[in-house]
Amino acid sequence: MSEQLTAGVVGGSGFTGGELLRLLDGHPNFEVAQATSRSYERKTVGHVHPNLRHLDLRFTSPADLESVDVLFTATPHGVSMEHIDAFQDAADTVVDLSADFRLSEETQYDEWYDGHICPEYLEKSEYALPELNRENLPGADLIAAGGCNATATILGLKPLFDADILSGDEQVVVDVKVGSSEGGAGASKASSHAERSGIVRPYAPTGHRHEAEIEEYLGLSVSFTVHAVDMVRGAAATCHVFPDGPVSKGDMWKAFRGSYGDEPFMRTVAGGGGVYRYPEPKSVAGTNFGEVGFEIDPTNRRLVVFSAIDNMMKGSAGQAVHAANIALGLEETAGLDFTGYHPIGSP
Amino acid sequence: MSEQLTAGVVGGSGFTGGELLRLLDGHPNFEVAQATSRSYERKTVGHVHPNLRHLDLRFTSPADLESVDVLFTATPHGVSMEHIDAFQDAADTVVDLSADFRLSEETQYDEWYDGHICPEYLEKSEYALPELNRENLPGADLIAAGGCNATATILGLKPLFDADILSGDEQVVVDVKVGSSEGGAGASKASSHAERSGIVRPYAPTGHRHEAEIEEYLGLSVSFTVHAVDMVRGAAATCHVFPDGPVSKGDMWKAFRGSYGDEPFMRTVAGGGGVYRYPEPKSVAGTNFGEVGFEIDPTNRRLVVFSAIDNMMKGSAGQAVHAANIALGLEETAGLDFTGYHPIGSP
Amino acid sequence: MSEQLTAGVVGGSGFTGGELLRLLDGHPNFEVAQATSRSYERKTVGHVHPNLRHLDLRFTSPADLESVDVLFTATPHGVSMEHIDAFQDAADTVVDLSADFRLSEETQYDEWYDGHICPEYLEKSEYALPELNRENLPGADLIAAGGCNATATILGLKPLFDADILSGDEQVVVDVKVGSSEGGAGASKASSHAERSGIVRPYAPTGHRHEAEIEEYLGLSVSFTVHAVDMVRGAAATCHVFPDGPVSKGDMWKAFRGSYGDEPFMRTVAGGGGVYRYPEPKSVAGTNFGEVGFEIDPTNRRLVVFSAIDNMMKGSAGQAVHAANIALGLEETAGLDFTGYHPIGSP
Amino acid sequence: MSEQLTAGVVGGSGFTGGELLRLLDGHPNFEVAQATSRSYERKTVGHVHPNLRHLDLRFTSPADLESVDVLFTATPHGVSMEHIDAFQDAADTVVDLSADFRLSEETQYDEWYDGHICPEYLEKSEYALPELNRENLPGADLIAAGGCNATATILGLKPLFDADILSGDEQVVVDVKVGSSEGGAGASKASSHAERSGIVRPYAPTGHRHEAEIEEYLGLSVSFTVHAVDMVRGAAATCHVFPDGPVSKGDMWKAFRGSYGDEPFMRTVAGGGGVYRYPEPKSVAGTNFGEVGFEIDPTNRRLVVFSAIDNMMKGSAGQAVHAANIALGLEETAGLDFTGYHPIGSP
Repeated sequence: MSEQLTAGVVGGSGFTGGELLRLLDGHPNFEVAQATSRSYERKTVGHVHPNLRHLDLRFTSPADLESVDVLFTATPHGVSMEHIDAFQDAADTVVDLSADFRLSEETQYDEWYDGHICPEYLEKSEYALPELNRENLPGADLIAAGGCNATATILGLKPLFDADILSGDEQVVVDVKVGSSEGGAGASKASSHAERSGIVRPYAPTGHRHEAEIEEYLGLSVSFTVHAVDMVRGAAATCHVFPDGPVSKGDMWKAFRGSYGDEPFMRTVAGGGGVYRYPEPKSVAGTNFGEVGFEIDPTNRRLVVFSAIDNMMKGSAGQAVHAANIALGLEETAGLDFTGYHPIGSP
Repeated sequence: MSEQLTAGVVGGSGFTGGELLRLLDGHPNFEVAQATSRSYERKTVGHVHPNLRHLDLRFTSPADLESVDVLFTATPHGVSMEHIDAFQDAADTVVDLSADFRLSEETQYDEWYDGHICPEYLEKSEYALPELNRENLPGADLIAAGGCNATATILGLKPLFDADILSGDEQVVVDVKVGSSEGGAGASKASSHAERSGIVRPYAPTGHRHEAEIEEYLGLSVSFTVHAVDMVRGAAATCHVFPDGPVSKGDMWKAFRGSYGDEPFMRTVAGGGGVYRYPEPKSVAGTNFGEVGFEIDPTNRRLVVFSAIDNMMKGSAGQAVHAANIALGLEETAGLDFTGYHPIGSP
Repeated sequence: MSEQLTAGVVGGSGFTGGELLRLLDGHPNFEVAQATSRSYERKTVGHVHPNLRHLDLRFTSPADLESVDVLFTATPHGVSMEHIDAFQDAADTVVDLSADFRLSEETQYDEWYDGHICPEYLEKSEYALPELNRENLPGADLIAAGGCNATATILGLKPLFDADILSGDEQVVVDVKVGSSEGGAGASKASSHAERSGIVRPYAPTGHRHEAEIEEYLGLSVSFTVHAVDMVRGAAATCHVFPDGPVSKGDMWKAFRGSYGDEPFMRTVAGGGGVYRYPEPKSVAGTNFGEVGFEIDPTNRRLVVFSAIDNMMKGSAGQAVHAANIALGLEETAGLDFTGYHPIGSP
Repeated sequence: MSEQLTAGVVGGSGFTGGELLRLLDGHPNFEVAQATSRSYERKTVGHVHPNLRHLDLRFTSPADLESVDVLFTATPHGVSMEHIDAFQDAADTVVDLSADFRLSEETQYDEWYDGHICPEYLEKSEYALPELNRENLPGADLIAAGGCNATATILGLKPLFDADILSGDEQVVVDVKVGSSEGGAGASKASSHAERSGIVRPYAPTGHRHEAEIEEYLGLSVSFTVHAVDMVRGAAATCHVFPDGPVSKGDMWKAFRGSYGDEPFMRTVAGGGGVYRYPEPKSVAGTNFGEVGFEIDPTNRRLVVFSAIDNMMKGSAGQAVHAANIALGLEETAGLDFTGYHPIGSP
């Protein structure tokens, strides 16, 4: 018989909060004990997340935190660090989805963010991107789920490090395309339907904070640019890689099979015909799957690596549940082993 | 221990064929033994349906039909009637997703379609729209899953018949909005991305064939118009109803609760605040849920009834699996009890 | 030599304000002397409207109104009535794009809106929908441009009144589909990209205020429902009309040709093959054209009339400039005689 | 008094053919004498291009070519070279929109395309990208309008060459995002609405033929990758440039102002606040404007240059008319000096 654990979600009315609630509701080992929201206290979760109308659950105040086995905190950056003690009092295992505990060094944090109020937790927390470091997660009490764009990039490039195609000194340009959900559930002129439909908009030309995660966990300084395009969920990273020596298609297949052959959520897609020949956010929408693939440019000795994830799932809520599964000794794929659908209008 | 049955899908490379494969793959009682496709013989199902890349299954020729417990036939209209004997030889239970066996009388069929080649099956087959007639389905050997736009309309109006608000003589205008998947997986100039994006296009101003189903199973002749709008999946029926006498909001709630209070897949959504106050295809995308709701126009003694389904699911593959579950004595919701996600770019 | 007049725009940073600026910039007879905006004072118009980056014009405060020949006021409903005296002091001809002066009777206004503070202007102002009443406009000093959804509906149904197919007592259901620009340039959760993409959302099931205009100017009480769909600009009205007697296709063509044969901006589109067989917002996007068309439903003695406009143009800014042209004795089509483009992603 | 010339369009039913017809219809110096189409012979141009319904013009067979002053040929690649003699017999000035005459050397052509049947024309023809080489165009009798993705890239990078920031030996990665109109008006499974909506799809990971134009006319070998995204028209090139030495923001502004300060169709957009801070296809949709902008990445000594055009206009039909204007001694901006509109759903 499977283990039953209680779970709480702080920040349950945001987009990633909603995805956490969906995943936990369908998870064989978790029961949602509480979902907090400052803005929607006492409203049903279905009021905000119409897909969850069947749930008999109302948002409560974050001030009234209940004790649970695992607490997922999906708050804006900077909020978790203010409440980390309360979170850890409430649960033995805290999985934070913000950027507050992703980096391990205070100097790094300060360089990319605004100053940390409890830097001692930076070292104690475990960064979670299971395909990269699942061995660190069992028993962890504070887990920082990797950021969406960093996750897409790291997943694409990791096999090249595993196979010694990259060592970290090479030139790598990462051109990312993301959906509107990365901006969160708030309303702004820039994210209004009329202004945001049909765009290809440079939204972080340089200096995107996820570079810091890539640098720390992959050991690579990348040239990183993020564009907003017309989809709601999805992060697609195109990595233009300039290796030192020649790399063959066989080398690449070997690298990707070596790194991801046994990974339950990774799919390598590279050519093969048909409409869907490379990774696409559309192919993984709503799921915890990640797709990676590649092509080789003989002229320039360039490798082009493609990586596509659902930023709300593999890049956030799915990654968090995946990490919690590992931390708590559950089946890794529990609650995440479902398939997306096709066709979909827009992810 | 749950019963294990084998299932086959004829027409597995189409859109509804893909959805059948997704549902059967996740169904606790079915194992997919075969998926046929004339165009993609020997290709993997993942070649056509990128969401199903993890499936180790290749399309076979429809000429090589295997014996299975249940056969789902998702072929263009007119094909099933040609092969119905072979289908019935292959499986004790055949669930057809085309229009070939939906009507029960040959004269009706001939009026709306082109002449039936095996009209004796019209009477023998069972129309399946479980919320309307689940009592007919147990043990049925030939089931015709209801059409998408008819299903949306019937689900919206049924409570008004159940509650005697409508008797069948009233004026009802049904204005339907549908996504591009209703046109199937084929390519045409009208359905190309450049020509079809952003449209509000009258595509069946009058004479849509689903009127025949509504007339037979609801006993109502409707004024029916279908528009294509910019989504891939979804059918939203707005029913403008002119009842004989006054109808209160309480009457309507009573009617909808009476008809659907115990239905596992039906949700009544009528006001209540927030962004999602009425049925929307976006709220049920990818699932077998149907949403219905209403508003009352005091000035004109008009009721406005809204109904939204995913045409590929509740309006096709989901309905077919739901019907098969009932026909075979399985749990009604088996393989269909999952939740969609939110937000989604476009259903 | 053409006459040169000065024009001002109050509310220039909104969507219709931007369209006014575009039209006036390209107009042979107008020079933009001023554009006001409370929120963007001193910013260039290109800051808000990227299509107008070439204009050397900055927003000024609405408190500093300059004297111009014609003043276009594109403010939220309720604002114009507060400032009407200042507007009329500033210009001999005021064209208001809000609903403040569209109705002619105070009782009607109060029934649909919130109480008028200067009801004496209701009678004095001229409603402008040139195809309906251009004869009222020459020399008018206060013009109220017709509302977008009312315009679409009136344009569709007018020929039936002109040809005595309708007298005003018949049952007419109008099911409208509109884009997100109808909600204006403000930001809200409901209009955010993530929540609004891919929708078919009942947003005014009953009681839409434009019913009042239709009732006053067409003499018809309609059953009116508005849906939001995934486009930015466009209003498509489908009118389900139940005439007293039989109406032939020839009758309809005669009616539409009779009413619109000489209209410079009206196109009747009804069948004929190809992809674009009926009116579509996509076919008129960005222009002052209106498309109307029809189909006849023999079974129910129903006529289905389609009407499509760009709500920002024919339904607002274009209509206002068209009316100003007539009021001031200019060429009717001046500044409006350009063609949209095809294909377009989404209007 | 303005000069009046006759113009013909070969391939008038394609997307760029339609845009040519729109531009020529609104052009003060051209009268459209003929538009040919094999597929739509004798149909009105409005049958295919609903925006042109007001034109009294029917497609004729390409076999019946009339003599005109200027002939625009918008045929698929490989067709123009077969008919070039007939084209030149029909008009003193031929502007070809295909790739057939863009490169000047046969060896280059053969490397990127399939073998040229009249290579003597490669040298004789003039490549047209007016901002790059308008001095070559006056009096030219065979003009090859530059390709869309090459145009976007060249426009973005040209100022860096003009200002000696680049010499041609540097590393430049160009990551392009394009709309569905680049695939033309034909129907295919990959370009169907259901399969193409909401995508970020690598469609030319390496080896895109426009690299050849960039190499010839800019003297730069680029690492080039093209993605299809959810818009119909638009090409956005993000150029990741690694100059040899440090480059300041002032250097960049000086470079862009120097190259484009007097260009009638170029706008430099780089920061400045508001929603539209960088070039976007949405800001130039339907027009001949090109937007360029940049940002500097201090960490990596990288420059990020953004360039956005409407691939059908500045990248094709607009560029062709612009070139014809110059070739024929007309006003450069004639017929092209109109403004796009805002907001637009999707370009």
